[in-house]
Amino acid sequence: MGTSAVPDIVVGRLPLYLRALSQMEAEGKEITSSQELGERLGISSAQIRKDLSQFGEFGKQGTGYSIGYLTEQLKRILKVNQTWDVALIGVGDLGRAVANYAGFLDRGFRVVAIYDNDPRKIGLKVGPFQIRDAAKLVQDLRGQRIQVAMLAVPVAEAQSVTDRLVEGGVRAILCYAPTSISVPRLVRVQYIDPVLHLQRMTYYVP
Amino acid sequence: MGTSAVPDIVVGRLPLYLRALSQMEAEGKEITSSQELGERLGISSAQIRKDLSQFGEFGKQGTGYSIGYLTEQLKRILKVNQTWDVALIGVGDLGRAVANYAGFLDRGFRVVAIYDNDPRKIGLKVGPFQIRDAAKLVQDLRGQRIQVAMLAVPVAEAQSVTDRLVEGGVRAILCYAPTSISVPRLVRVQYIDPVLHLQRMTYYVP
Repeated sequence: MGTSAVPDIVVGRLPLYLRALSQMEAEGKEITSSQELGERLGISSAQIRKDLSQFGEFGKQGTGYSIGYLTEQLKRILKVNQTWDVALIGVGDLGRAVANYAGFLDRGFRVVAIYDNDPRKIGLKVGPFQIRDAAKLVQDLRGQRIQVAMLAVPVAEAQSVTDRLVEGGVRAILCYAPTSISVPRLVRVQYIDPVLHLQRMTYYVP
Repeated sequence: MGTSAVPDIVVGRLPLYLRALSQMEAEGKEITSSQELGERLGISSAQIRKDLSQFGEFGKQGTGYSIGYLTEQLKRILKVNQTWDVALIGVGDLGRAVANYAGFLDRGFRVVAIYDNDPRKIGLKVGPFQIRDAAKLVQDLRGQRIQVAMLAVPVAEAQSVTDRLVEGGVRAILCYAPTSISVPRLVRVQYIDPVLHLQRMTYYVP
């Protein structure tokens, strides 16, 4: 219905809008405007109206947006009106922090299993999880129909683990390893590498 | 010299190119091409050539790029041919992982001090660092001329700590708190919020 043609950069801004709306809701607000959202996010109100208009009519001229309604619509569009089961692979310092992060659940994601290939770690507890043997990954992913994974393994293992995630049916991978991974066309990848962000900023520091 | 007009989205790809070049160098390669870089990164070779052309002539038609030379040039452009001192504020699970992350140093950044406002944490050791009192932040930043900071504090404290970072002279903030922060025009902010990335992907999962 046309949404397949929405540029990815627009899709990428919807989670920002959703996060700002959730914060407004937590502050007890019920109505907002593209101006107010824009000021919070440092994005122009025209851009916000244009982005949202790609998905439908969410507000009336002059009365602004109902925060509750727009939140529901954005959750539906981003498919986080459901909770996605997530596998986490790699339980070093970072993987441990991710496993313990409380901010996933109310935003559509639930870590359900964590994996490592280090025999000294397998079986240990991290928060509510017992670290599972990465050798069981493909079988588990298929059995539990897990479609989302977070990858916090060393660079040298990133591609081989990725291949097993894909084999297990994963369709979305958040890669914390500071490298690029190859996936089939229908699998999405996003990267988190703090140094990329830092270098993007130092360019501007005089 | 014209570079001030380079779109930020282009600047944002340079660290990706630099990372891929460093990996090629580590593999013992000396020459690459926009085609090869593009395949590694999932970016078209035309895009890569166009991006690089905004900053100068880095390769000769038909002979490709010298990896060593292009690496040096990108480091210079991104100003990571020097090492930036970085302050880390907030030593929870994530802050701890960031403090222990070994991947900053050879890419232009060095954590030099970590801060928390929890009296039970101040003075404790994390890796080579002793956690300092966040009350000393502005004074330390100014005294050590620190221009880069990473923020791993709870959402409720993010803006007040940001204000102190700015007061202390910080020009680039990497924000791990899942919220938007306001800064003066000359200060850059980048965000790391894994949920934003996950939501951007689930949009596409059928």
